[in-house]
Amino acid sequence: MPEPFRHRIRVRYGECDAQSIVFNAHYFAYFDLALTELYREAFGSYQSMLDRGIDLVVGEANAHFRAPARFDDELDLEVTVTRLGTTGITTRYDVLRDGELLVVGELRHVVVSLGTHEKTPIPDWLREGLGRFAGL
Amino acid sequence: MPEPFRHRIRVRYGECDAQSIVFNAHYFAYFDLALTELYREAFGSYQSMLDRGIDLVVGEANAHFRAPARFDDELDLEVTVTRLGTTGITTRYDVLRDGELLVVGELRHVVVSLGTHEKTPIPDWLREGLGRFAGL
Amino acid sequence: MPEPFRHRIRVRYGECDAQSIVFNAHYFAYFDLALTELYREAFGSYQSMLDRGIDLVVGEANAHFRAPARFDDELDLEVTVTRLGTTGITTRYDVLRDGELLVVGELRHVVVSLGTHEKTPIPDWLREGLGRFAGL
Amino acid sequence: MPEPFRHRIRVRYGECDAQSIVFNAHYFAYFDLALTELYREAFGSYQSMLDRGIDLVVGEANAHFRAPARFDDELDLEVTVTRLGTTGITTRYDVLRDGELLVVGELRHVVVSLGTHEKTPIPDWLREGLGRFAGL
Repeated sequence: MPEPFRHRIRVRYGECDAQSIVFNAHYFAYFDLALTELYREAFGSYQSMLDRGIDLVVGEANAHFRAPARFDDELDLEVTVTRLGTTGITTRYDVLRDGELLVVGELRHVVVSLGTHEKTPIPDWLREGLGRFAGL
Repeated sequence: MPEPFRHRIRVRYGECDAQSIVFNAHYFAYFDLALTELYREAFGSYQSMLDRGIDLVVGEANAHFRAPARFDDELDLEVTVTRLGTTGITTRYDVLRDGELLVVGELRHVVVSLGTHEKTPIPDWLREGLGRFAGL
Repeated sequence: MPEPFRHRIRVRYGECDAQSIVFNAHYFAYFDLALTELYREAFGSYQSMLDRGIDLVVGEANAHFRAPARFDDELDLEVTVTRLGTTGITTRYDVLRDGELLVVGELRHVVVSLGTHEKTPIPDWLREGLGRFAGL
Repeated sequence: MPEPFRHRIRVRYGECDAQSIVFNAHYFAYFDLALTELYREAFGSYQSMLDRGIDLVVGEANAHFRAPARFDDELDLEVTVTRLGTTGITTRYDVLRDGELLVVGELRHVVVSLGTHEKTPIPDWLREGLGRFAGL
């Protein structure tokens, strides 16, 4: 079983709301930036995907919030590729602080051709790159 | 069957990303602001809820993206209260542009005491206020 | 002396920080959306400007903060065009709550050709449209 | 002449707008997070300032934009304390990419008592901590 991909961030002041905790919408931006870092590791960069005529659109996003994160907290974002279908990619996000699981999220992307935005099968280089981070 | 609550917004420039469409995380901020407007109609305001010692925390959030919204689009946010449990409230969000359904979302909140942040049963005034927007 | 252009917004929950006040960066997004509404009144829409081969880039932005705005406040954004140069446009923003001035801002834009992003003189239709909102 | 404080960030996807460049409002959030990192180095953390009964409010913010930053760019945020008055602190921000200066910003803060939010003289520990990053 491979290790999940990890990326560490620090909570910014403007990401916290009047409850002094991270506003829920920002977690989805966290998922996105963690996935961008996984792309860098998996096949170069998001741009290198565009350069090969492939883009990804988000079909579904969800998150379970177990405990709040606060300003200046260091958070570990762990990303696992949980499904590689014909045209669909599902990724899971575990947000941890000092090993405590705060949020679990999931994004489902669809692979499209850059020009037409039509669904297209996952190319081999993308499947191989992401496959390195596959897990349950 | 009651009409859903409706609130209209216009997509802001900074909410769109390099794909020229609304960045997925912003829809969760849209859901939140639509719910704030529903609170205003249902029982006065979010602040009036705090004044009565009650707060809400988000336990779960999800969204299905069917078609993108773009800069300057006018969006209708329709909110329906789909479940009023003992301590939990579930709300559904339909995001439409000219009657076309773009995004369907759901938030699950837990009612807590303002001071202790402990789960507490939904008070009658809150149940009645939200009940006016209940539906499937 | 013409009336300034006015656009009313309501402060969103996620725009407030742990001090329970609007995070300073969001005022610059407020200025931007107020200007977008002025464009709509002045010459159709931001898109209609792009359609005529013209775009605007921000050269300078500043704001003086006199008093904080809070969640759920209704804010009046007043926009005045304070300078129409050869290629530069300066706009002023007064942010008021119930007539009280909270923030004063200024943006300086440069007019560019859409394709090349080279500076270009302000076209007549743009000068006339914005001129309706000129003032000191 | 001391070296300026440096903090490196990477531009996030959701921070870029439909022009594919960082939306101007986000630079003010960048300044804020760079200043938070300077606080950590200067006297422990923003929280440690609150713990000593001191808070800072932003009085003025401005930025000059010379060249755009794009998605995935690595940016160096350099912070210099340019003025330590009786109650006011001015900081300058140079945003660079590979040594090229993209944006120059400035924030003016006022020191206040945490409880009353009244202006208060800069305490010695704060003046000493920030003084290490003073420059022109």
